[in-house]
Amino acid sequence: MVNTAYLQVSTNGNTDIHDITTKVEAEILRSEVASGLVTVFCPSSTSAVTTIEFENGCLSDFRSLFDEIVNPERPYAHNLRWGDGNGHSHIRAALLGPSLTVPFSDRKLLLGTWQQIIFVDFDNRPRQRRLVLQVVGD
Amino acid sequence: MVNTAYLQVSTNGNTDIHDITTKVEAEILRSEVASGLVTVFCPSSTSAVTTIEFENGCLSDFRSLFDEIVNPERPYAHNLRWGDGNGHSHIRAALLGPSLTVPFSDRKLLLGTWQQIIFVDFDNRPRQRRLVLQVVGD
Amino acid sequence: MVNTAYLQVSTNGNTDIHDITTKVEAEILRSEVASGLVTVFCPSSTSAVTTIEFENGCLSDFRSLFDEIVNPERPYAHNLRWGDGNGHSHIRAALLGPSLTVPFSDRKLLLGTWQQIIFVDFDNRPRQRRLVLQVVGD
Repeated sequence: MVNTAYLQVSTNGNTDIHDITTKVEAEILRSEVASGLVTVFCPSSTSAVTTIEFENGCLSDFRSLFDEIVNPERPYAHNLRWGDGNGHSHIRAALLGPSLTVPFSDRKLLLGTWQQIIFVDFDNRPRQRRLVLQVVGD
Repeated sequence: MVNTAYLQVSTNGNTDIHDITTKVEAEILRSEVASGLVTVFCPSSTSAVTTIEFENGCLSDFRSLFDEIVNPERPYAHNLRWGDGNGHSHIRAALLGPSLTVPFSDRKLLLGTWQQIIFVDFDNRPRQRRLVLQVVGD
Repeated sequence: MVNTAYLQVSTNGNTDIHDITTKVEAEILRSEVASGLVTVFCPSSTSAVTTIEFENGCLSDFRSLFDEIVNPERPYAHNLRWGDGNGHSHIRAALLGPSLTVPFSDRKLLLGTWQQIIFVDFDNRPRQRRLVLQVVGD
């Protein structure tokens, strides 16, 4: 069985981080698939998905990492060509990745106690995003 | 068909790296699924999974990368709030990612000759870990 | 339903980046699976897969990121042991990851408008690569 659903997220951009765990769980319940995989996919080249302990310290440290290794202040070839100033957003998104696959069983996500699914919008302005939640299983 | 299994791993923490390839292959044989996908998932916010050539040079270089880009010696907001000293572990795990999906066919993982599946425990102390192996296929 | 296919790619190595989106879409059409997941997998420890906006600015910035955070000019333990000079290739591939899972529906990949699937060969010489495309769905 395959169930395709979409999740709307309004973001502020600039490495805005959203905990989408509850919404992914709700979609699994709606899907009538008991056990399998859910792939959370960002159909975008400036946003990404991973897991983290969703508390302000970790979120701040996560943003600092990307400011350090993909610094928005340095020159980007993308910006020179297109002038939209989000060259760093593209590179951050490509590094972290647009896809996360999480197993579930008996209709429950098999996450750790302190582990949440996060959607990260790296773009340099607010965006209305639509994520794909693809549920495959029995 | 969906088969959910668990894999116990005892680690030393501190970027301890375990080759779990043989155990993932054994689980595919047990599952009676001939072809499909296996998702190796870390239900934790301080560990992660990827592939590498499992030889001491690569393992040492891999640890050096994380010491450089997510240096445990600098301040972390997580540590200031919680005092557990593993702020770098959380950020490393979020960057590398908790999920790896590997195809298999005729009950064999479709890995490269010099490619192994590794579980990496970034936490700052020994841990007893339980990974999820979700097998989906025919 | 599970369909296993392979994709041949001739590369120049040295972070050569190939847009494989059209070939992945063609394989979904051949598979006769209407909706599900396709996992693009690199059976190699020196190449990786992600998505990006495939334009020269982004590609140049992406290469610069890896030159900065996994600099080929510094010493690598792998090179000291094996003398093949591709220690940085292994570490880059392990960081970016060998696996990408993309949802599709009505035989179409659910990618963003400006988002392409890229195969990145980090090895330090030209290679003939064979990627796995595993299609699972209905």
